[in-house]
Amino acid sequence: MTAPARAVTAALIIIGNEILSGRTQDTNLPYLAKRLNELGVRLSEVRVVPDVTERIVETVNACRSRFDYVFTTGGIGPTHDDITAAALAEAFGVPLTRDPEAVRRLKEHYGEGELNEARLRMALVPEGAELVDNPVSKAPGFVIGNVFVFAGVPRIMQAMFENIKYRLVGGAVVKSRAIAAFLLEGEIAAGLEQLQHRYPDLEIGSYPFLRAGRLGTSVVVRGTDESRIDDAAEELIGLIRHLGGAPAEDSGTPR
Amino acid sequence: MTAPARAVTAALIIIGNEILSGRTQDTNLPYLAKRLNELGVRLSEVRVVPDVTERIVETVNACRSRFDYVFTTGGIGPTHDDITAAALAEAFGVPLTRDPEAVRRLKEHYGEGELNEARLRMALVPEGAELVDNPVSKAPGFVIGNVFVFAGVPRIMQAMFENIKYRLVGGAVVKSRAIAAFLLEGEIAAGLEQLQHRYPDLEIGSYPFLRAGRLGTSVVVRGTDESRIDDAAEELIGLIRHLGGAPAEDSGTPR
Repeated sequence: MTAPARAVTAALIIIGNEILSGRTQDTNLPYLAKRLNELGVRLSEVRVVPDVTERIVETVNACRSRFDYVFTTGGIGPTHDDITAAALAEAFGVPLTRDPEAVRRLKEHYGEGELNEARLRMALVPEGAELVDNPVSKAPGFVIGNVFVFAGVPRIMQAMFENIKYRLVGGAVVKSRAIAAFLLEGEIAAGLEQLQHRYPDLEIGSYPFLRAGRLGTSVVVRGTDESRIDDAAEELIGLIRHLGGAPAEDSGTPR
Repeated sequence: MTAPARAVTAALIIIGNEILSGRTQDTNLPYLAKRLNELGVRLSEVRVVPDVTERIVETVNACRSRFDYVFTTGGIGPTHDDITAAALAEAFGVPLTRDPEAVRRLKEHYGEGELNEARLRMALVPEGAELVDNPVSKAPGFVIGNVFVFAGVPRIMQAMFENIKYRLVGGAVVKSRAIAAFLLEGEIAAGLEQLQHRYPDLEIGSYPFLRAGRLGTSVVVRGTDESRIDDAAEELIGLIRHLGGAPAEDSGTPR
């Protein structure tokens, strides 16, 4: 085994009152988490903040100094409450400028007379930012420093991510296996702790669930060395059987 | 209209690698957001952090000084990765102690010989904390200062919240109406901005969506005065019709 490299980390900042009010269920978090992980980047923190400039500025600055990559979703449309680009300019201490290439793309997309003042706001980016293609509705996202600014609509966010992911330099990819059984956490806890001690290079997490009224436990073994994960998973399966449980691979459903 | 009272705010800290890995979709956020709102408490920030003591300590301390109430979910079970109680003790600078009442409840719940060392860990709480009932699996949550520590399993979290919500002192309740139409944000933006100027006491948010391959916009009008909301919604409906759209009340489905 080679010495593990420093993990490459990311934060996601979800911008939007509609998430904080509970009206809209975010789905960008699990999408990004999984896709980043495949590239060797670990989602290490998520923050959901309201559409308030100073809160966005503060959160972006706290995260960009701490994590290798920062992703934001939401607030880059043409309406008055779309303040992400201006907040990013403020966070980086640069002017907000109208990007000629973004204007060109919007002109190409919108018919004569349709490219109104509101839509032209979508060409405003912090000075020095690079555009991120938006194949769905053309208005681009952008990258500034280590911050990737995406739309909030999942299909557009996903397309932006796929267009720009080549820029991410990941570390070792974290693999995992999950084994579930209708055993209570309290029954398996002592054995799990011993297993964790025998595999200090792996991260063994235990997550209770309630399915069809029955409590059970899903144990997730994570690490960068697949053979070690398989060894630990085999021991785990033995432990569950020893405790009278019926272990099953768990693909990760909502608990 | 009376002068609006200061808003009562809350933060939610979701503790768990399983959320950050994308394996488990959190559903506690929308539940808490809606229930808090009914009590006049506004969810103002959410943070998702890993099962790492110093990250929990830092996040709890950042949030408890800033928001009126803080809720945490996850990490209070009997396994080695359940570190929330110890992290809270550290955040508050108090010892972690075995609570006699929590031990009594666990003894009552578990049969002779079932209350093992792992399960007794669930009776450890920061000194000075008050227990929160758990009608599902007995192991209690707790409250310390303005921080409410709940389980991560949604049904247990919800039961804990319902048991303790009488302690929350809310402000004015935010009401909302949402009107959706298959109009593009860029078409409605100018009119919306004018509407926002005429109703500075309301918060008018515009959220694009993609349904059955068609882009549309959902406009949410929020405020504490229902008659003002209705007035603004009527103007909004008129605006949408004027632009050729078919306005419909939107109950808040995923976009």
